Amino acid sequence: MTCNVELLSVGNELLLGNTVNTNASWIASQITPLGGVVTRITTVPDSLEEISKAVKEAIGRKPDFIITTGGIGPTFDDMTIKAVAKAFRLRLKLNEAALQMVREHYGRRFPNRKISLTPPRLKMATLPVGGLAVPNPVGTAPALHLNVGNTQIYCLPGVPKEAEAIFRESLSQTIRCKAGNKVFVEKWLKVQGVMESALSPVIDKVMSQWPGVYIKSHPRGAEGKGGPRIELHFSISASDSARAERTVLGAMADAIRLLRGYKARITPRR
Amino acid sequence: MTCNVELLSVGNELLLGNTVNTNASWIASQITPLGGVVTRITTVPDSLEEISKAVKEAIGRKPDFIITTGGIGPTFDDMTIKAVAKAFRLRLKLNEAALQMVREHYGRRFPNRKISLTPPRLKMATLPVGGLAVPNPVGTAPALHLNVGNTQIYCLPGVPKEAEAIFRESLSQTIRCKAGNKVFVEKWLKVQGVMESALSPVIDKVMSQWPGVYIKSHPRGAEGKGGPRIELHFSISASDSARAERTVLGAMADAIRLLRGYKARITPRR
Repeated sequence: MTCNVELLSVGNELLLGNTVNTNASWIASQITPLGGVVTRITTVPDSLEEISKAVKEAIGRKPDFIITTGGIGPTFDDMTIKAVAKAFRLRLKLNEAALQMVREHYGRRFPNRKISLTPPRLKMATLPVGGLAVPNPVGTAPALHLNVGNTQIYCLPGVPKEAEAIFRESLSQTIRCKAGNKVFVEKWLKVQGVMESALSPVIDKVMSQWPGVYIKSHPRGAEGKGGPRIELHFSISASDSARAERTVLGAMADAIRLLRGYKARITPRR
Repeated sequence: MTCNVELLSVGNELLLGNTVNTNASWIASQITPLGGVVTRITTVPDSLEEISKAVKEAIGRKPDFIITTGGIGPTFDDMTIKAVAKAFRLRLKLNEAALQMVREHYGRRFPNRKISLTPPRLKMATLPVGGLAVPNPVGTAPALHLNVGNTQIYCLPGVPKEAEAIFRESLSQTIRCKAGNKVFVEKWLKVQGVMESALSPVIDKVMSQWPGVYIKSHPRGAEGKGGPRIELHFSISASDSARAERTVLGAMADAIRLLRGYKARITPRR
């Protein structure tokens, strides 16, 4: 079974360079060990047109999941929900379950105040027809869950703490189920004293001997004593974790053996 | 004049969640003050097919620049250059200028050793016909510059230090020229004690009174004494910097005035 996931990050701040897209890397770092594969990450501005286009393009690639972050709050430029509705020509409607979540959130936070449901607050409870409200355990705006064809769309908030809480509570289990028994095993080796261009044939050789193992070299600097520092990332995606582990370790042992001829300093990276 | 830029980040590590995409945010943070606008950021894996598709899609949106990072090194999975060639059906050829750069790089780093030009090293000097080699002042692989229609494509390395050096040396001036006299002015206000949903009508009002000014609210936490903390980002893109500055300050003053009724604590953010 495969479980392909596309991430769509929404927010001008990401394109202005004010904010580093840690939401995308955090979500990806959660999906990988669950057996899912993030196939693409797209970042678009707070624009109805651009978000809507990007969602339609993503659906066209038929991933199992599309997870968006950002643009589901109360302000004028929070338009992800509206853009998703537009992409699939769905009507927006006040969602009773979402409204209840918004009400309860304000009730918990301000037990002694009456919080009136102004238009910006009602906006957070307005979802496309057919969409489900997903509880936000640490913020106001509920997330959206919508099925389109065989793709499950989840729209999460942009505030990292909220996106993370919703992912943990409502998404990780679903992704694990969809991925079936896939596991992802990865290990690192630090190699110092060999140029990346010299490592290249070693990588080719080990990969050809260990089908399924993917080796990627990451240059980490050429300065200093001891010569270039490179980290080698060994990974495999498989359904038997013990066998996957053995395979990666076997490939690493072969790489270490081949690298002996290079006078390299090799250490495992934790 | 407008100067739209698309960024294309290449690398499995970004999709596995091992690496945060700081290259994209760094480049975006440089482009914005130069007057350019980053319109989309796409991240794809080390796959010839996926990179090539993403480049073609980007060209279809007719940006002034496409800047890719990653995948131009010596190893088997460095395939950005090949993917760009494939996207536009260009033949790959050993580029004499690029070869000279690779040779000089090894000559500088290993003045007392003869470094043979193995296939992985020649690969870094192999560019699409019509492409230009761009010097890499701190690494081996030259960058690629290729014009396709009215779009200038630049392929930079994925190592941050190298991408940054090439951007500074060979790209920033080009982007500034293309952007003409556009400036981007931004300022921040910290607001504590008002919920984002209550701020929303204030933002709408100030934006309607100050055309061109964009105000975005960033929730920074609801816990602790003093109530929710929100940062307001005021920005404008214009051709007269003094006027842009005055306009943003005027919008900020109006927002501060309107927020007085809310018992908010307002401080500028440096």
